[in-house]
Amino acid sequence: MTPHHTTWFPIPEHSDFSIYNLPFGIFSTPDRTPRVGIAIGEHIIDLADLAQSGLWDNIAPASVFEQNTLNAFIRLGKKTTSAVRLKVQELLCDPESPLKSVMDGRFFVAQSEATMYLPVEIGDYTDFYSSIEHATNVGKMFRDPANALLPNWRHLPVGYHGRASSIVVSGTPIRRPHGQVLPKGAEVPVFQASARLDFELEMAFIIGKDTPMGATIATADAEEYIFGMVLFNDWSARDIQAWEYVPLGPFLGKNFGSSVSPWVVTLDALEPFRVPGPTQEPQPLPYLQCDRPANYDIALEVSITPENSTETVVCRSNFKYMYWNMPQQLAHHTVNGCNVRVGDLMASGTISGSTEDSFGSMLELAWQGTKPLPMSDGTERVFIRDLDTVTMRGHAEKDGIRVGFGEVTGKVLGV
Amino acid sequence: MTPHHTTWFPIPEHSDFSIYNLPFGIFSTPDRTPRVGIAIGEHIIDLADLAQSGLWDNIAPASVFEQNTLNAFIRLGKKTTSAVRLKVQELLCDPESPLKSVMDGRFFVAQSEATMYLPVEIGDYTDFYSSIEHATNVGKMFRDPANALLPNWRHLPVGYHGRASSIVVSGTPIRRPHGQVLPKGAEVPVFQASARLDFELEMAFIIGKDTPMGATIATADAEEYIFGMVLFNDWSARDIQAWEYVPLGPFLGKNFGSSVSPWVVTLDALEPFRVPGPTQEPQPLPYLQCDRPANYDIALEVSITPENSTETVVCRSNFKYMYWNMPQQLAHHTVNGCNVRVGDLMASGTISGSTEDSFGSMLELAWQGTKPLPMSDGTERVFIRDLDTVTMRGHAEKDGIRVGFGEVTGKVLGV
Repeated sequence: MTPHHTTWFPIPEHSDFSIYNLPFGIFSTPDRTPRVGIAIGEHIIDLADLAQSGLWDNIAPASVFEQNTLNAFIRLGKKTTSAVRLKVQELLCDPESPLKSVMDGRFFVAQSEATMYLPVEIGDYTDFYSSIEHATNVGKMFRDPANALLPNWRHLPVGYHGRASSIVVSGTPIRRPHGQVLPKGAEVPVFQASARLDFELEMAFIIGKDTPMGATIATADAEEYIFGMVLFNDWSARDIQAWEYVPLGPFLGKNFGSSVSPWVVTLDALEPFRVPGPTQEPQPLPYLQCDRPANYDIALEVSITPENSTETVVCRSNFKYMYWNMPQQLAHHTVNGCNVRVGDLMASGTISGSTEDSFGSMLELAWQGTKPLPMSDGTERVFIRDLDTVTMRGHAEKDGIRVGFGEVTGKVLGV
Repeated sequence: MTPHHTTWFPIPEHSDFSIYNLPFGIFSTPDRTPRVGIAIGEHIIDLADLAQSGLWDNIAPASVFEQNTLNAFIRLGKKTTSAVRLKVQELLCDPESPLKSVMDGRFFVAQSEATMYLPVEIGDYTDFYSSIEHATNVGKMFRDPANALLPNWRHLPVGYHGRASSIVVSGTPIRRPHGQVLPKGAEVPVFQASARLDFELEMAFIIGKDTPMGATIATADAEEYIFGMVLFNDWSARDIQAWEYVPLGPFLGKNFGSSVSPWVVTLDALEPFRVPGPTQEPQPLPYLQCDRPANYDIALEVSITPENSTETVVCRSNFKYMYWNMPQQLAHHTVNGCNVRVGDLMASGTISGSTEDSFGSMLELAWQGTKPLPMSDGTERVFIRDLDTVTMRGHAEKDGIRVGFGEVTGKVLGV
């Protein structure tokens, strides 16, 4: 049981940003340069100002909060970053808190007045492929329905490197990419705007501690290296990807843009929601075995909002469905000595469940265009149209405690 | 014809670092913090010191030379970086040069006394697959010998994203990776040290100018975005790669380490060696068409030096064999709006020629282990053994002008 906390700060019911969450992000306002903040209810606590005031013990050097990424803060180590979060929690619960007297002022900013930024400088971005339902769906569609999973899939968390430069924060518009596409039945490709633009519902974790080259991370130690998590939309141009991806994997079908949610929810905050994952059969090799539950029960949903219309939820899934968990992904990624760095982002791969309404991409939801999805405005979708906005949300909830991610959203612009 | 230059500075005959080259790199000595230098003969000119002295016009702010990467310098733009290089060339040729009087001192450092660093902070690393001979060899071995090239290969420069964190400078030892391997005939993988460790002879170009997301780079403009080139060894664990790579491409078989040469040779210096590439059939789509010759005649070689032995050259190839040229690679990479950033590294893929001694990897040279290569010490190699040192060299030469890359070298350590 998580101890209950009562805060004097006004937080709307069902807020993702409860007193139990306190995620970190980078924000600015017209008066404040980009800096580190913590989300609480509908507000942000300005940690740069807080660190410089006399109100707060100097748990961490003030300079790390006056940055436009979380990297320097994260690099202080979990002992420090956890202490900062707990201190803020204490200040928000203490009825005598010195913060209270200045609540309407200096340290608090309304989220509606803030601009959010990519929370970390991402050195390297890796995308896994760890949902067995997603990999099976894709295998059924494009390969052999009877042997949908490739032989390696149950033995290792398949992953590949993605493009870091084009990862953007929620709210950034995504331009529909052009590229080479092979028309059905043709032998020669044509150049056109992608006609099969898709989202992929993913979550991602952010590396919290460097390793040197040659070092490995055991599954038992992996959580020391994970600072926190975000929502992740791995936008995909299916037609470009289908033509280009053999034999070396996805490239232009993915690297035109990926979107992340602005608030990094710490593993500390997610601890109450830890659950066991699916049974792994066959048992993985020893370096991939994981002794304790390492999945998290995080409800996820995706909606599509056509231009000038209301949103339609098209997918409800859950992070707990993941076949390979984060410690296994990280142990695998480093078992060959590959080094990781603070700020690296490692995404889950599309998170699909077993029911048709829990599939994490339009490719699966509309089953390659054969099952159009109705929108609230009467139109249908098999893929994403220009001016559609795709929004992903995620939250964990248990025993009256809610810890959420807010949302990652992006509007598709035509070309 | 390149105008001939005569320098008063002593340069050994056949030096890669002639007065026509003047490549940029990052070096330090026990007395000098890491900083920008230019290689000349067996020496380095200390640009940080030079910029601060009264000897040199302030073409560029001194601060960009007092950095441990070239990124800030490159970001000044080609007009400035080219002017710096030409000014150094002028100072080295002027018989009345003020540098002359202090030649034995302050501004010059012997390369033998310097430590070299990774020349740039690499944001993203992309690896292409642009040698038709290499792609054909691999296709013959692993797929259909009669249809060795996949259908997309002649239509686009196939590429994929690699790991930036594990790219190291020449001289850094490479640890043989462990990983999952599927033994011949087995259905279940085992965990072991790679038994098929290989090099890949590549060259790479370094991005010299940012683009915003959504922008494209035309082939005609691509050279504005390329600062210079390095040698690149894309170390590969063939057995790990073979098991993991479907369907999303290479991952742990590559990301345990890649090596680059320390001196970045500018496109300016390579200009005299521009040559046409192979005929492209079929003609590529318009966005990939390239009006002028964009290959470079750069002789390449790879040697293996067993521990306590002499080196054996195992491969002689040439960068001019590349089917897809750098402007085409960059046009393709950005045609979907993917942004590039100063310091991004884009590698060619293995550079193989048409003759058996010009293949750019052990996989091809020893044809999957069937044709062992003799070493000077009487041993044989089908892949790389522990304590072997692999060295790659490259240079262009024409009309008595030599512009070289020095070498990229790495010793393989056991585990």
